[in-house]
Amino acid sequence: MAVSDQDIAYMQHALHLAEKGLFTTDPNPRVGCVLVKQNKIIGEGWHEYAGQPHAEVMAIQTTHVPLDGACCYVTLEPCCHQGLTPPCTQLLIESNISRVVIAMTDPNPVVAGKGINELLEAGIEVELGVLEAEARELNKGFIKRQNTGLPYVVCKQGMSIDAKTAMASGESQWITGKQARREVQVLRARSGAVITGSGTVLVDNPSLNVRHADLPLAYQQQPFNQPLRVILDSKGKLTDEATIFHLEGEAIWVTTEDSSLSSDDVECLKITATDEGKISLLPVLQWLGERGINEVLLEAGANLAGAFVADDLIDELVIFMAPKVLGHKGRSLLNIPHIDKLTDAKTFQFKDVEVIDQDIRLRFIKG
Amino acid sequence: MAVSDQDIAYMQHALHLAEKGLFTTDPNPRVGCVLVKQNKIIGEGWHEYAGQPHAEVMAIQTTHVPLDGACCYVTLEPCCHQGLTPPCTQLLIESNISRVVIAMTDPNPVVAGKGINELLEAGIEVELGVLEAEARELNKGFIKRQNTGLPYVVCKQGMSIDAKTAMASGESQWITGKQARREVQVLRARSGAVITGSGTVLVDNPSLNVRHADLPLAYQQQPFNQPLRVILDSKGKLTDEATIFHLEGEAIWVTTEDSSLSSDDVECLKITATDEGKISLLPVLQWLGERGINEVLLEAGANLAGAFVADDLIDELVIFMAPKVLGHKGRSLLNIPHIDKLTDAKTFQFKDVEVIDQDIRLRFIKG
Repeated sequence: MAVSDQDIAYMQHALHLAEKGLFTTDPNPRVGCVLVKQNKIIGEGWHEYAGQPHAEVMAIQTTHVPLDGACCYVTLEPCCHQGLTPPCTQLLIESNISRVVIAMTDPNPVVAGKGINELLEAGIEVELGVLEAEARELNKGFIKRQNTGLPYVVCKQGMSIDAKTAMASGESQWITGKQARREVQVLRARSGAVITGSGTVLVDNPSLNVRHADLPLAYQQQPFNQPLRVILDSKGKLTDEATIFHLEGEAIWVTTEDSSLSSDDVECLKITATDEGKISLLPVLQWLGERGINEVLLEAGANLAGAFVADDLIDELVIFMAPKVLGHKGRSLLNIPHIDKLTDAKTFQFKDVEVIDQDIRLRFIKG
Repeated sequence: MAVSDQDIAYMQHALHLAEKGLFTTDPNPRVGCVLVKQNKIIGEGWHEYAGQPHAEVMAIQTTHVPLDGACCYVTLEPCCHQGLTPPCTQLLIESNISRVVIAMTDPNPVVAGKGINELLEAGIEVELGVLEAEARELNKGFIKRQNTGLPYVVCKQGMSIDAKTAMASGESQWITGKQARREVQVLRARSGAVITGSGTVLVDNPSLNVRHADLPLAYQQQPFNQPLRVILDSKGKLTDEATIFHLEGEAIWVTTEDSSLSSDDVECLKITATDEGKISLLPVLQWLGERGINEVLLEAGANLAGAFVADDLIDELVIFMAPKVLGHKGRSLLNIPHIDKLTDAKTFQFKDVEVIDQDIRLRFIKG
């Protein structure tokens, strides 16, 4: 049976359901599921928290009619392994569902096509790849971590047309407008961790947490977790009394192995130093990946953000651009010491643009 | 009679015709005209060169059926004055056309609604404002010059994501790709003049002219004029042997009234100096406006472009952005000395974005 317009519409609905877990599923993926029988939706569900039921289970629990002959739309291949919850494939097979439409295979190596095989062996018709690009976008962090052990790193910057992030004096509040700042709240809420540097903490004293009232209206009904705040402080410039260590949610103070920094109040992490005495960035990401964090938001100044770009560690660059010109005396977007020729330039690919009130949001992905 | 979908479609066609004069009508506006009778196009035309027939005359000349009862779609209010050609209103009235649909009134004070009044007084039905925004966009230069005496100034820049236009070494060819450079050719061809500074001439030795082979394919059938090349050289750094003075088309060497610069070969223009000994920019634009130039393209380095921004003389900022990062050592987009606080920032409005191969084109208009 070919893919129909209805298949696409039901999968679209399953993706909308999956987005209800946007802020809470880490380390798990965001998954939505819709059950359809005789062209009627008879059940729907989504995964909300690790340890709680998968989307398929949630959907089946909401049905009040027998499932035999029904079609299941699910945004990720059903699992076939015993994890914190039982395998979903068995449940679908036992329910006598006759067709399963799947957006994408599960990149988790213990599933990775085996779930689909189990369904096929049980005589269930399987359709794979419906709205796959949208499903992959929704779980770009989970996919990257499964494939590489590293989280998906989003670097967010606010700037003027001429890519200045602040005046020479440091004055920077606010270059972009209120609506752009609301979108930053969404970026934070969907991230398992937010990384910043000691310089930003000293200058701006930011909270880097999610404030319910500042989320866009469309997201205000959605549960969220505070992202882990990761503060890089290679030179030990901060004290454990900094505000950012003592807000709701977890914070971790990262320094180099050479540092004598310690605290009874704040969790510390010591990481290999680079030749220049900075914190090696890749091991920080590896540590976050091991902790099950799928997406990381980098909210840092020009030095730290530039270091991530220099090390090719940015998966996505999200620029909020205000339609202003600040002139050459303003502060540069990214400090990268070792670019001297055009061929040294770091290359990205344009992804998309959105108008956000008077500002625009430009997104670029790794080139 | 209300505006119908057909009216909009015919006006869209008239706008397409008008665009055939995109590169050649200065000092006149770009105008297209479609004649429709019993739902068939019976004639069409556009204005191509000053002194040649207006679009309405061209359209009428192509018809082979009587015009009584026909409808005329024209992108600009028909003229009612004897200029280089006779008034179009009389021609339409004498043709027994019964309805005239017009995109926008003529900003030229000798017309400015009087053309419409003449048609109405002759008993012709007139519909005004169909696709007005598109018509105004097409003639933004003509409109501005009629209203203010000044040309519409477009500042074009090529830059990286972090708004660098070149490496510290000056290396800049090419930040953006070939397709973006083709779009620059369109900007040049539609401009009556291109302004640059002596610094750019000394460093890049640019031609700043239109090269037929480099125009996008869609424009290669279209006639074009070489824009007037305007070279600002307040300090007299150039000699009259510079290549840019001796290419096809006209060039003018602009300096200050205090300068002793002169040439037998190149037309010179002396303009009031600012307190800093620079060329006053507004008088340059006034001079170009008096010469009948509707649109000016500024292709300059950070100092001259910054000076235009500082003086609020830019109507539209066109940025070709390559998805690259060059780092803080690259050259800034705009040098503007007197911006020290965020409230001093120069404000624009986002207009639109277009993907151009791997690059993007962002347009901003005066805020």
